[in-house]
Amino acid sequence: MKEDILKSWNDSTARKSIIEFVKNVTTEGSTDFVPIKDRVATFDNDGTLWCEQPLQVQFFYVIDRIKVIAESNPEMKDTQPFKAFLEQDLKTISTFTKQQLMEFLFTAMGEKTPEELASAVKNWFETARNPKFNFSYYDCAFKPQLELLDYLRANDFKVFIVSGGGIEFMRVISEKIYGIPTDCVIGSSVKTEIVMNGTVPVINRLKELANFDDREEKVLNIHLHIGKRPILAFGNSDGDLAMLRYTLAGNGKRLALLLHHDDAEREVAYDRDFKISPLNEALDVAAAEGIQVVSMKNDWTRVF
Amino acid sequence: MKEDILKSWNDSTARKSIIEFVKNVTTEGSTDFVPIKDRVATFDNDGTLWCEQPLQVQFFYVIDRIKVIAESNPEMKDTQPFKAFLEQDLKTISTFTKQQLMEFLFTAMGEKTPEELASAVKNWFETARNPKFNFSYYDCAFKPQLELLDYLRANDFKVFIVSGGGIEFMRVISEKIYGIPTDCVIGSSVKTEIVMNGTVPVINRLKELANFDDREEKVLNIHLHIGKRPILAFGNSDGDLAMLRYTLAGNGKRLALLLHHDDAEREVAYDRDFKISPLNEALDVAAAEGIQVVSMKNDWTRVF
Repeated sequence: MKEDILKSWNDSTARKSIIEFVKNVTTEGSTDFVPIKDRVATFDNDGTLWCEQPLQVQFFYVIDRIKVIAESNPEMKDTQPFKAFLEQDLKTISTFTKQQLMEFLFTAMGEKTPEELASAVKNWFETARNPKFNFSYYDCAFKPQLELLDYLRANDFKVFIVSGGGIEFMRVISEKIYGIPTDCVIGSSVKTEIVMNGTVPVINRLKELANFDDREEKVLNIHLHIGKRPILAFGNSDGDLAMLRYTLAGNGKRLALLLHHDDAEREVAYDRDFKISPLNEALDVAAAEGIQVVSMKNDWTRVF
Repeated sequence: MKEDILKSWNDSTARKSIIEFVKNVTTEGSTDFVPIKDRVATFDNDGTLWCEQPLQVQFFYVIDRIKVIAESNPEMKDTQPFKAFLEQDLKTISTFTKQQLMEFLFTAMGEKTPEELASAVKNWFETARNPKFNFSYYDCAFKPQLELLDYLRANDFKVFIVSGGGIEFMRVISEKIYGIPTDCVIGSSVKTEIVMNGTVPVINRLKELANFDDREEKVLNIHLHIGKRPILAFGNSDGDLAMLRYTLAGNGKRLALLLHHDDAEREVAYDRDFKISPLNEALDVAAAEGIQVVSMKNDWTRVF
């Protein structure tokens, strides 16, 4: 009989492997028992916790934001990469490299102080809607993943986001959407400096990347921010492979999961050809390296 | 009547200001009410949570560790700053600048992987003893501060360490001594890189400072690691002044505390002349800027 947990998951191998893992590491006396303080789980965000189609949420924020900035900088209308964003030319945008896009993104998110940026992002979330699914980005999270976060927390896991997305962008909504506090959100960041306003130190954001939290960098950031190797990690792209491998390489029982977007009907079927964040190598090595692939189509009874 | 909390605190202004603050921000309906998710408190470590006399704990670790390293590098016995550490020449050590000491420290903590460093530190803590007080460093924490951490957590605060000490060093003992999980410990760090062992990413520590978590840098690290302005901060030196000011500059009720080591009998009386980490400017501006000074001598009924 299916338990009253992970209700939006089919009773398939993926769901069983999660439940078996959690039972093993939380059962005192079990050889796989892990004390509460070491129950660290890390999740990628874009494409793992919420929908990244037709583009990552943060890009839609930037598209809207650039319009506002371009009003006082009309030359941007004829200059790439701004032109493509202003024209919502997704085809051209999709040819940009991930690194180029991220750097553009941080340029476009040019607010001087963290408070100003957070306020602009929050305002946008209040009204913006995903163009494909026509619902609020607040509703962009995958229902089965929200259940998984709850299930892990109910078993005394501490859950972290480790994403290539902007750390300040995600923190605006992480509590509301995922119940994940800001200090448990790790992401890409810009350099900052202190400017004194009299005796008060004020944080100024610089238009320069400090850290692009992708691939191997995710492992280094887990060490810097968490200081512990996760026992469970969940990703959906090659950008997550290092994190999954780092997780599996620890002693004792570990679980690494990889979401495969193979559901053209309920979401979008994509993997190797999604240039911004492809799933390619990770899919090839998953079986051999003990990474559990989760099929959106087969393992989830609902998506949103 | 004195409540059954903060028992090692005298019923003086300092204790009253803490209790009044906590009551204000946790009472629903109060104009000063702060939701649980925003109850962030940051504590300096050395000299605030535990004793930093005659030197910070981490320096005693380094003194012992350098002896081991010098066995295979005999030229170190005649070279400064190693010579002073090998001879436990505290007088010479006390003339080194903070920045010099930190850089030496990270050089001496040269283990390649985080696991190797953590293991060496843990082994040392099992037997090492403070030379002045002759007790284990596990017992170096101030009893009134442990009670304050408990009191804050009982009121749904999330407590962070924000210290100039090494982030990896502190994380080895933060759970055991303070009940503070590793991800809530922020400190100075070395640069790291990934080296692949087959398909497994391995973190390598480099002998280069990535971040010296002192003064204004504490504010930037609070933003990077926590993503929220604290509503309470506690320090004991000029290195904490920026953090205290940043805390007080937020909207709503805030509390900034400064421990003054004025107790020559039970600990050590020191402030302006402690070159490694002086308390000078912060003491001068405390009253004018609304920073609550805590006198070890007058406000604490016991120290350890």
